[in-house]
Amino acid sequence: MTAIRLDMTMSLDGFIAGPDDRPGQEMGLGGFRLFNWLDDRAGPGPNGEVYAESMATGAIISGRRTFELAGRWNGDHHDGVPILVLTHHVADDDAPPGSARFYTDVGECAAAAREGAGGNDVMVHGAGAARALIRAGELDEIEVHVVPVLLGAGRPLFAGLEDTAGPVELEAVRVVQGRDATHLRYRVVRTR
Amino acid sequence: MTAIRLDMTMSLDGFIAGPDDRPGQEMGLGGFRLFNWLDDRAGPGPNGEVYAESMATGAIISGRRTFELAGRWNGDHHDGVPILVLTHHVADDDAPPGSARFYTDVGECAAAAREGAGGNDVMVHGAGAARALIRAGELDEIEVHVVPVLLGAGRPLFAGLEDTAGPVELEAVRVVQGRDATHLRYRVVRTR
Repeated sequence: MTAIRLDMTMSLDGFIAGPDDRPGQEMGLGGFRLFNWLDDRAGPGPNGEVYAESMATGAIISGRRTFELAGRWNGDHHDGVPILVLTHHVADDDAPPGSARFYTDVGECAAAAREGAGGNDVMVHGAGAARALIRAGELDEIEVHVVPVLLGAGRPLFAGLEDTAGPVELEAVRVVQGRDATHLRYRVVRTR
Repeated sequence: MTAIRLDMTMSLDGFIAGPDDRPGQEMGLGGFRLFNWLDDRAGPGPNGEVYAESMATGAIISGRRTFELAGRWNGDHHDGVPILVLTHHVADDDAPPGSARFYTDVGECAAAAREGAGGNDVMVHGAGAARALIRAGELDEIEVHVVPVLLGAGRPLFAGLEDTAGPVELEAVRVVQGRDATHLRYRVVRTR
């Protein structure tokens, strides 16, 4: 069954980018430190295996901010799979490139992603998209690549969940230790 | 060699207590959820082994807030080992109970803890104490017991490190998966 899975790299203190992330400095100040483990992405070890799983997904749900910072991936994140972009506003004359489409309704977005993934899993990118999916009860799994560094400041992965009812229960289903990243996978047991 | 090691239980979203932690509600709203893994502390499995290691430490450094919320441990955290309490202010007539002593200087506190631990490691409790030790370059290791839950709000473990120079580099030295907690141990490679 298709799982919608958040897939993000995070410092031990919870940041997915350094401070002041913006066009031209997409990962924020010092934030590229988080991606050292991806140097092994083509290799045979644990980092390569985990990366290959990410790339075997059949669709991507991205937050708008992540989508724009990534230069819209020129319309192709990997293998031409559907890119579903969650956003609050779509301009009439804004046609996203390649396989990218805008969605303003999170339930519709999740349903379309499950449909479009061709039996594979769905990768979720971006803190905002994760938050929206958690709130809607549409996030099935979380994979965080925890990097052994305290950045001290930046953009947090988990934020803005305080005004919902009760905690989100998870279940640890896998731990993989790679060079410079601990890959933790969770199943979402209960969303709000 | 004696290692000064932070030892804290944290939700995946980085909280060590729920919101509104105070006397009478020491773990904050819903925060006791974090301690389910400690039900196994006397058992033979991974949780029991990790807990036994914690209890084999020869001294404790605690933040003042943690110390007070814990009822000053009645002067004995475990086995009568020295309890060194980092604080900004000591009242003249305040004599802490048992093996507890107040310290206002972090370097002096760390030195006394290493000296008093009798060749064993030193356990650090509390976010404030951890921050002070990191800033002083006196924290050697970090052990976080990551609990599979998103609390959404509460007291963060890692905060207040943004005004120091550069990231704190760590090295993952051990991962132990227990029931309801993933125990991650890091060596501090470089402090500020």
